[in-house]
Amino acid sequence: MYNLLKGKKGIIFGALNQHSIAWKTAQRAHEEGAEFVLTNAPAAMRMGELDVLAKKTGSQIIAADATSIDDLENLVERSMEILGGKIDFVLHSIGMSVNVRKGKSYTDPNYDFTTKGWDVSAVSFHKLLNVLYKKEAMNAWGSIVALTYMAAQRSFPDYNDMADNKAYLESIARSFGYFFGRDHKVRVNTISQSPTPTTAGTGVKGFDGFITYSEKMSPLGNATALECADYTISMFSDLTKKVTLQNLFHDGGFSNMGVSDAVMERFE
Amino acid sequence: MYNLLKGKKGIIFGALNQHSIAWKTAQRAHEEGAEFVLTNAPAAMRMGELDVLAKKTGSQIIAADATSIDDLENLVERSMEILGGKIDFVLHSIGMSVNVRKGKSYTDPNYDFTTKGWDVSAVSFHKLLNVLYKKEAMNAWGSIVALTYMAAQRSFPDYNDMADNKAYLESIARSFGYFFGRDHKVRVNTISQSPTPTTAGTGVKGFDGFITYSEKMSPLGNATALECADYTISMFSDLTKKVTLQNLFHDGGFSNMGVSDAVMERFE
Amino acid sequence: MYNLLKGKKGIIFGALNQHSIAWKTAQRAHEEGAEFVLTNAPAAMRMGELDVLAKKTGSQIIAADATSIDDLENLVERSMEILGGKIDFVLHSIGMSVNVRKGKSYTDPNYDFTTKGWDVSAVSFHKLLNVLYKKEAMNAWGSIVALTYMAAQRSFPDYNDMADNKAYLESIARSFGYFFGRDHKVRVNTISQSPTPTTAGTGVKGFDGFITYSEKMSPLGNATALECADYTISMFSDLTKKVTLQNLFHDGGFSNMGVSDAVMERFE
Amino acid sequence: MYNLLKGKKGIIFGALNQHSIAWKTAQRAHEEGAEFVLTNAPAAMRMGELDVLAKKTGSQIIAADATSIDDLENLVERSMEILGGKIDFVLHSIGMSVNVRKGKSYTDPNYDFTTKGWDVSAVSFHKLLNVLYKKEAMNAWGSIVALTYMAAQRSFPDYNDMADNKAYLESIARSFGYFFGRDHKVRVNTISQSPTPTTAGTGVKGFDGFITYSEKMSPLGNATALECADYTISMFSDLTKKVTLQNLFHDGGFSNMGVSDAVMERFE
Repeated sequence: MYNLLKGKKGIIFGALNQHSIAWKTAQRAHEEGAEFVLTNAPAAMRMGELDVLAKKTGSQIIAADATSIDDLENLVERSMEILGGKIDFVLHSIGMSVNVRKGKSYTDPNYDFTTKGWDVSAVSFHKLLNVLYKKEAMNAWGSIVALTYMAAQRSFPDYNDMADNKAYLESIARSFGYFFGRDHKVRVNTISQSPTPTTAGTGVKGFDGFITYSEKMSPLGNATALECADYTISMFSDLTKKVTLQNLFHDGGFSNMGVSDAVMERFE
Repeated sequence: MYNLLKGKKGIIFGALNQHSIAWKTAQRAHEEGAEFVLTNAPAAMRMGELDVLAKKTGSQIIAADATSIDDLENLVERSMEILGGKIDFVLHSIGMSVNVRKGKSYTDPNYDFTTKGWDVSAVSFHKLLNVLYKKEAMNAWGSIVALTYMAAQRSFPDYNDMADNKAYLESIARSFGYFFGRDHKVRVNTISQSPTPTTAGTGVKGFDGFITYSEKMSPLGNATALECADYTISMFSDLTKKVTLQNLFHDGGFSNMGVSDAVMERFE
Repeated sequence: MYNLLKGKKGIIFGALNQHSIAWKTAQRAHEEGAEFVLTNAPAAMRMGELDVLAKKTGSQIIAADATSIDDLENLVERSMEILGGKIDFVLHSIGMSVNVRKGKSYTDPNYDFTTKGWDVSAVSFHKLLNVLYKKEAMNAWGSIVALTYMAAQRSFPDYNDMADNKAYLESIARSFGYFFGRDHKVRVNTISQSPTPTTAGTGVKGFDGFITYSEKMSPLGNATALECADYTISMFSDLTKKVTLQNLFHDGGFSNMGVSDAVMERFE
Repeated sequence: MYNLLKGKKGIIFGALNQHSIAWKTAQRAHEEGAEFVLTNAPAAMRMGELDVLAKKTGSQIIAADATSIDDLENLVERSMEILGGKIDFVLHSIGMSVNVRKGKSYTDPNYDFTTKGWDVSAVSFHKLLNVLYKKEAMNAWGSIVALTYMAAQRSFPDYNDMADNKAYLESIARSFGYFFGRDHKVRVNTISQSPTPTTAGTGVKGFDGFITYSEKMSPLGNATALECADYTISMFSDLTKKVTLQNLFHDGGFSNMGVSDAVMERFE
């Protein structure tokens, strides 16, 4: 629509289906003139319809387990070959709690599940940054974004161990962002999005009540997946070159609300 | 460059000269296809070269004392006449400490100066929002931005009472932003910018040492006035519709640094 | 009970009646072995029962308008005479919004009321610090506390302009706290307390519904006035010597909750 | 000194030698009338002089690997037997980065080391809370504290993966603190301490320069291990019953400083 990403090359993780934020981001990046590689875990690719998205956006797909350094090295190298140069933007939209899937409570998890979820949801971001950094795969003033949720700052009982994983993820953005900024002039940020009815989101216990609560609390209402894609595009564009190490709330104002009139109505 | 603001109408406060962030924002808004009215206090206009900017951007100028409800009402009404409709974006870039100008220390100010500086730097933003809200002068999904500085969160000895004024300003953005979002679907945010060598910035005591320190602390270096203008454009665009009540750091990463290697070098 | 404040001398502002946090703090400080002067505005003293508290705690009362430097100078000088030395602790528990009292909305206040409320609720703290600092009235490792509310960080529609006043107040604690720490080894903090059914608290519109909401959101329930007094005592004691420039939430956990099960129940 | 913990029973992790914060906390808890069990990992106990501390404070020692649920269960059960009842306070002062020990950089760690350090430094706290919660081992209004560092919020290049571990640890305090508060009226907080010349602290690269920098930045100077012990005692006492889910900075003001005059001197 604006050619905001004309000539830019990217890698987009985590598009599962048309409800995914990563899917919408890929569509929007395509509209804005970018070329990119799509990637997801082999298992996720079997569930999803990534081929459709690849066709629509003229993109190639490279399967990668984001917890495997080997897979990430292959992904980054082949992406540079396919795209014909270094990378300008990367979206990390990966998260999964085995404890949530298996119905374990936060207070009594299976710690092997905890470790697996942490590796997939948080350490995968460190490994990705590690590979991009070591291979000097990013262009100067490139932009790396990971999606997160406000449970990293505040207690949401049903978010389970994903809260702690997101806190770790956001810390990686700050810690690694320093080195990436200092050495390669690349920015690293996280976007903290409203609860979104994606496949992952709706898997959280009590999601329907929660999204209603969030909608009523937020002066502009919840942000949609498409709106998140728009915001992510702005963070990939040259308009935001000096924004780094930040956790950016994209949530219709939820994060800075104490209480709204619409929520208070239920307590009067 | 991108037509990001095509068809959008705005009001820009506080362009003093070509070093001003507001000046750069006006230039960039013009390039992005916006139409807008320029405004400043009568006294500031005598010092500045606003006519040059108006000519370059095809804009009209309306003088307004931002502490006067009457002046603001006149400004908003006439702006809607000139621009032929409601407003889509507003930039508040106004700040002045009489105590700083008169060389008063933070610990022993003249409280009349304190009150004057607070009125100009912070309450002016409330008055502006009040007039825009009451007159229903903003289009739905419009965007209002005020510029601020991180002294609102942390202690910078030489920033004097502007620290407290900026804290009040940022609070107004949250407090009024709720009502503006709920009732008119308008977003209100502040951008917390690196120290910038504008006319106002360089008036702060010890500015040269300070900007060096800030440069060395920030992994991407300080953000320039033009980069701030770019970021402000992104906040006026339709890409950021659900961002509201936020204080957005635009500072090369300074705000989330504990210490950098470049700063540590001076302590080893 | 513990002799935590044995030999310490203080000044306590804002005890109106037995529901006041300042009243409870005075009682607890007395139990902990402190001597102190009680002070309030002449108007507030006519409404209150400060004499009863003075008798119970063996304290003298000095009336002072906290917006008057002259009154504050008199207060501090006479307090040092009465107590026989420099001051170890000060509690600022003062706040009043004329706009709230007169039923003005946040979006359309009377700005003279705004200025008056800001002067009483926020600038009074700066003036107090100014007088204590200039007169070198505080002992090393003394402790100054002001009471605040979380509306300084997040939007609570009915808190009106007190939100912005509290943001300014908290900024003063950081700004002045630097100088007081550097020069006199005195700490300055704010305590951000749960909504409390004091005379001031219950004047806020919709207080009953709000305190219920807050109770249900907080894992430990709302903090009472007496519990706030206890916490304030800990901040006056020698156990917290290196805590400064902080805003300390004393709220049963409310501030770090995203949502609780008890709140969610109303949305399912 | 004050009998603040008279009749209270506790468990203290992580006293290695007389420089340890946990060691000082044990000494202070003893002075304040508490009874407690001391615990550390078998390996750490071989290095340390825990017997000396046990003798001085009349405490028993139970070795426990804090990453082992079995060891923690044994520890909690035996502690209740030894102390004759439920627990009132717990200090978690455990942290270790294998990557730091082995000289690995943050940007290219050994991920097995990363996992091990995360398990020891962060997940151990979850496991401890899990065991205490499941066994209903805490008295109502008990207090659990973990020590942390500000690298969880901001980038400190030499703190390596401990930054991310501490972010995860602080998130656990919020996440688990909700359940512990709601169900057992127990509070869970973290104390974010100044850099401290403990055995662990001095192992961080560039520690000497860093502690000087921190001292110059903090208006009250760095907080010592003994001062941290005092502050921890206040958090174990009945004076702070409604403080929960918080991360409490105990750092002489460092966390809310933008820059101090003493630091600026090196840049002028």
